Amino acid sequence: MKRSIVTIEDLTNQEILNLFKQADKYLDANEDEATHRLRRSFDDAHNRIAATLFFEPSTRTRLSFETAMFRLGGQVISCADPKTSSSDKGESLADTIRVVQTYADLIILRHPSEGAARVADEYADVPVINAGDGGHEHPTQTLCDLYTLYREKKELANLNVLVSGDLKNGRTVHSLVYALARFGAHIILAPAKGFELPMHVAQRLEHEYNSVPLGRDSVKDLPDHVDVVYITPQEPHSTALITVKVDLSNIDVYYVTRLQTERLKNSRSGAAFPVIDKSFLQGDRYSDTRVMHPLPRVRELGYDLDKDPRGAYFQQTAYGVPIRMALIAALLRVQPLLERATQTPKYDVYLSTPEGIRCTNKNCILKNEAERRHLTPKMWIVDPAQANLFQPVILRCIYCEYDYKPTAIFDKRSGTRTSSVDTWRTIPTESRVFCDSEPTHKRRKAKKGTATIATPDTLKA
Amino acid sequence: MKRSIVTIEDLTNQEILNLFKQADKYLDANEDEATHRLRRSFDDAHNRIAATLFFEPSTRTRLSFETAMFRLGGQVISCADPKTSSSDKGESLADTIRVVQTYADLIILRHPSEGAARVADEYADVPVINAGDGGHEHPTQTLCDLYTLYREKKELANLNVLVSGDLKNGRTVHSLVYALARFGAHIILAPAKGFELPMHVAQRLEHEYNSVPLGRDSVKDLPDHVDVVYITPQEPHSTALITVKVDLSNIDVYYVTRLQTERLKNSRSGAAFPVIDKSFLQGDRYSDTRVMHPLPRVRELGYDLDKDPRGAYFQQTAYGVPIRMALIAALLRVQPLLERATQTPKYDVYLSTPEGIRCTNKNCILKNEAERRHLTPKMWIVDPAQANLFQPVILRCIYCEYDYKPTAIFDKRSGTRTSSVDTWRTIPTESRVFCDSEPTHKRRKAKKGTATIATPDTLKA
Amino acid sequence: MKRSIVTIEDLTNQEILNLFKQADKYLDANEDEATHRLRRSFDDAHNRIAATLFFEPSTRTRLSFETAMFRLGGQVISCADPKTSSSDKGESLADTIRVVQTYADLIILRHPSEGAARVADEYADVPVINAGDGGHEHPTQTLCDLYTLYREKKELANLNVLVSGDLKNGRTVHSLVYALARFGAHIILAPAKGFELPMHVAQRLEHEYNSVPLGRDSVKDLPDHVDVVYITPQEPHSTALITVKVDLSNIDVYYVTRLQTERLKNSRSGAAFPVIDKSFLQGDRYSDTRVMHPLPRVRELGYDLDKDPRGAYFQQTAYGVPIRMALIAALLRVQPLLERATQTPKYDVYLSTPEGIRCTNKNCILKNEAERRHLTPKMWIVDPAQANLFQPVILRCIYCEYDYKPTAIFDKRSGTRTSSVDTWRTIPTESRVFCDSEPTHKRRKAKKGTATIATPDTLKA
Repeated sequence: MKRSIVTIEDLTNQEILNLFKQADKYLDANEDEATHRLRRSFDDAHNRIAATLFFEPSTRTRLSFETAMFRLGGQVISCADPKTSSSDKGESLADTIRVVQTYADLIILRHPSEGAARVADEYADVPVINAGDGGHEHPTQTLCDLYTLYREKKELANLNVLVSGDLKNGRTVHSLVYALARFGAHIILAPAKGFELPMHVAQRLEHEYNSVPLGRDSVKDLPDHVDVVYITPQEPHSTALITVKVDLSNIDVYYVTRLQTERLKNSRSGAAFPVIDKSFLQGDRYSDTRVMHPLPRVRELGYDLDKDPRGAYFQQTAYGVPIRMALIAALLRVQPLLERATQTPKYDVYLSTPEGIRCTNKNCILKNEAERRHLTPKMWIVDPAQANLFQPVILRCIYCEYDYKPTAIFDKRSGTRTSSVDTWRTIPTESRVFCDSEPTHKRRKAKKGTATIATPDTLKA
Repeated sequence: MKRSIVTIEDLTNQEILNLFKQADKYLDANEDEATHRLRRSFDDAHNRIAATLFFEPSTRTRLSFETAMFRLGGQVISCADPKTSSSDKGESLADTIRVVQTYADLIILRHPSEGAARVADEYADVPVINAGDGGHEHPTQTLCDLYTLYREKKELANLNVLVSGDLKNGRTVHSLVYALARFGAHIILAPAKGFELPMHVAQRLEHEYNSVPLGRDSVKDLPDHVDVVYITPQEPHSTALITVKVDLSNIDVYYVTRLQTERLKNSRSGAAFPVIDKSFLQGDRYSDTRVMHPLPRVRELGYDLDKDPRGAYFQQTAYGVPIRMALIAALLRVQPLLERATQTPKYDVYLSTPEGIRCTNKNCILKNEAERRHLTPKMWIVDPAQANLFQPVILRCIYCEYDYKPTAIFDKRSGTRTSSVDTWRTIPTESRVFCDSEPTHKRRKAKKGTATIATPDTLKA
Repeated sequence: MKRSIVTIEDLTNQEILNLFKQADKYLDANEDEATHRLRRSFDDAHNRIAATLFFEPSTRTRLSFETAMFRLGGQVISCADPKTSSSDKGESLADTIRVVQTYADLIILRHPSEGAARVADEYADVPVINAGDGGHEHPTQTLCDLYTLYREKKELANLNVLVSGDLKNGRTVHSLVYALARFGAHIILAPAKGFELPMHVAQRLEHEYNSVPLGRDSVKDLPDHVDVVYITPQEPHSTALITVKVDLSNIDVYYVTRLQTERLKNSRSGAAFPVIDKSFLQGDRYSDTRVMHPLPRVRELGYDLDKDPRGAYFQQTAYGVPIRMALIAALLRVQPLLERATQTPKYDVYLSTPEGIRCTNKNCILKNEAERRHLTPKMWIVDPAQANLFQPVILRCIYCEYDYKPTAIFDKRSGTRTSSVDTWRTIPTESRVFCDSEPTHKRRKAKKGTATIATPDTLKA
């Protein structure tokens, strides 16, 4: 009966569009022209309290959420300094969440561990908003990015969105790319050398979002520094049938990301990466472009765009307030913006025991001593239907979404192990225990007897 | 004309019951079943501002108070980080308090020095709530504990309340034990080895709260790990007349406290102390028990009780909000919950000079350089009527309540010193100067001429 | 169309008096007699949000502003810990301000760099209040000081205001002295030895505020420890015509400032500086004096004045709330208290290039790497009409107000440099490039071609 937002996947496309319309309602009546901020407040969250728990500093995000709550007429209790919190006394995040939900109607969490927000959601009876969990997700930043596109360009499908800079390290960029695919925008990637999109993101884009990387000859007017272009037809497709040609003579949005210039210096060709400024954006291609940036900028974005009508990065920040207001109003159920009463997972769940298969991500919340006492490792079984086609099954940690590829299956009925994909398919789901092909690993013993395949329904039990 | 809450003793039993009834009013109308939090707010503190001054971190307590203030429709100014405060520039607490009271209608103080809240109360014209002063007191935690008992068990008198774990170091436990005595509950102590109730607490329980430790044969069905049971008849008594038999076949409340497991390892038998969880709480004795814990827990309390109906520790946290709301409403005089307009001290006061008898507690607020410039050492004269019966007079620091036992009295009329209790009684109160029997101590000289016995009336002058 | 308060000079005398009257309105209806705090709130800032950005800790100032905002019915978003802010990631103050103004209707800034508030004002479309920028300015402290004088003494002109202690290091004192001059109070200076008013402040007092230091024989009843007395006739004057005699047999206000006692110990005669307490303030001269102090005090002010009717320093703190309320109401335009829609600078502006003349103050905001990327050095041309009379022209940094005295002028028409003041006057304003007389300095080359004289109108462009 409650919904949380841990990743942008927790919202359907229709729900996201509902949020945009609600944000428009908040904004249209009273947007200040110079600053794009709201000039008055509403009472949708009157009598409601949000808790902003920031176990990692982020003033900008915290202030945006607190502003949203105040503009809705609500109140905020805040823990902005990780060193003053009970977690310093060894308290588990689960306990902290269960205490804070006895105070607040909504919890907004930032945490250094990946998967922390999902843990919070599991233990909370009130809605949880992920305001950033390590390198994992920051879904309201993505919402804000999409809302800016929507507000500036009136649509998302078939927009030419060029994303440049560091495509390797930023969670913001990965989430944005997936979201652009969901709404059918053209994704044009121009990474700095050494900062290309990671393989696992590219694979996910193709296999889970049905995006297609285009050949050079399928793109008209390709800018020199562009690496690859993805399109995502809204109907299911086979790569072989794609014959579409994308025209890049007009870039709708130029999304610049922060470049760690100190890292660039150590690479050979880093210095060559252009600063995006007025002189770079000359030519017809960029005449109606909107330049976005998640801020703070360092040197990759010129100050001369601040007063240029194409610079949209301060609007982008400003729009974070009404879109967060809409999200809060949706989760508090004061506005009927959500299609579903509960979140419905996309995949089946693989339940392990504390001794069983573990997430191998060293920043995963499951690595925390205090959490291990009460949490069971759980993994999504990603795309098992295609396991025999072009990839092995992927076990994705439910918390941090880190992928693990088991190399074999243990058959509980027969007591045998197989690493042949064809044989896998003959084993009934409930008898499968995922494992590695070499049985030498010590912990494997404990794993055998206890791991089970669970359906989403057994998850909450 | 103002009241403050520095210790739980600052409230009469009737006032505490009034607060419970007011908290019930706030809670009954709109308690959320899952989280026990309030779902709407009131306007009892509309237009009022509370200051939360936390010179020592405690997120949980601060958020609980701030929630209470917001649920009453008030506002909060907050200093949560000791390093950003003027006290770093050498300002005395007294000055800080007098500045902040020009802003706020109510001051909620947490401070590392014992007695800090009493100092604040002395200098404030607005009410002060002690939110924890070093190892001294944390009265709203005690209020919250009592309210949970009251709410879960409908009464306090004759309840069987078992308190286990670390009874030595926790101020929470000492205050709870005194409060249980005041309301006539049976106090059943089950300390970990080496963590027994300190002698001075046991003595205070007997001599000031009229509690009686029962012999083993006066208790029916004593659990193995229980150390001692206290009862407190509501009428004055003589120990010799106690013939009551207490039946422990039903434990109403099991109050678990945090065990510093690293300390336990160093003791011999620490490992033997049980973790309180479902398997420990088997048997009829615990079938209707409520398990409480001040949180955060470490390992002494099992996670399997979280969803057990007997686990009441998250309710306990939740009830902290309505009971703090009631206290704030009482102190702001928006609800007529207090019997008395001003606090009436229980004992006479012994005024010393800055050079006179000083509190010997090294964590006392009087040890602070900045406070010493303006504070006069003052001590309660505890129980002088019984001084000749079974104990010498106790001088209890008014601020930190640390006890000092003088071994002699100087008679101002005659200029002589006596350490005979019988002789003491012949000296008129106003001529007594408390001192030690050996006149060798250097500072004693200054003390002689200036120390006086004051009645409570002269305290405020 | 927006006004900011960076220095007290940003308000006209009439505007200051308007603020006093508005503060009186807030206060008169509901001042608590004991604490001087307001007992109820208003709704002038209903639906408005202020951001308190404190990049340097100052609990007292922050709480005073936040109280003011709450008493006006508004809300506050707050960043109180510099270490949790984006500026740690290398973000410029300008960017931070432009982000925060998309959230808040008003920005209240404290910053360690001198001139930071002016930079914020330049980049903000919402009003900015300077809550202290390094050693530069703290105008609301000055407003509060003046309001206390006004409230306690009913007028400002011809009041005898004695200022003692550290007149060298405190920005509070320098601003107060200028403001007293503006309102025609007699300024009586009694510095501790080695803590005298700096030469540049004395010169500014004389040349820009038309104050006149009086000879000893023009002062009646001069206290021993007084150094100098300034009077400021409200009509323009020539020093030669001053024949007024000031009578110091009655001191209206004794303004004590904090003495760094550790610095005093290192000077020879420091120990001689008196503690201002009851015994010091004996005699008719001080019988109706009000003692003020900006707090926190250390040892220079006796605790025995706290309950003395002459001690006005806690009132002074209390009055900080209503005067800040009035200022906020004025800047948010909810009360018509301002005479002018925009700030009109007193002097012409000298525009340099990034490579040109730079402020020589090492604490100036222009020294910050991140700010240098977007800021152009600008300087006020102070008092050029008098340049040939008794002083060279002064170039005053627009941001930190640090003075720079160029020793020559380069004539753009003729390409020649002159250091003769007489010759300067023959060069048309638009051809003047300020420089030093010796052309050896390396950076001078860059300066020549680009520096220009700008009128105030070109400043905002």
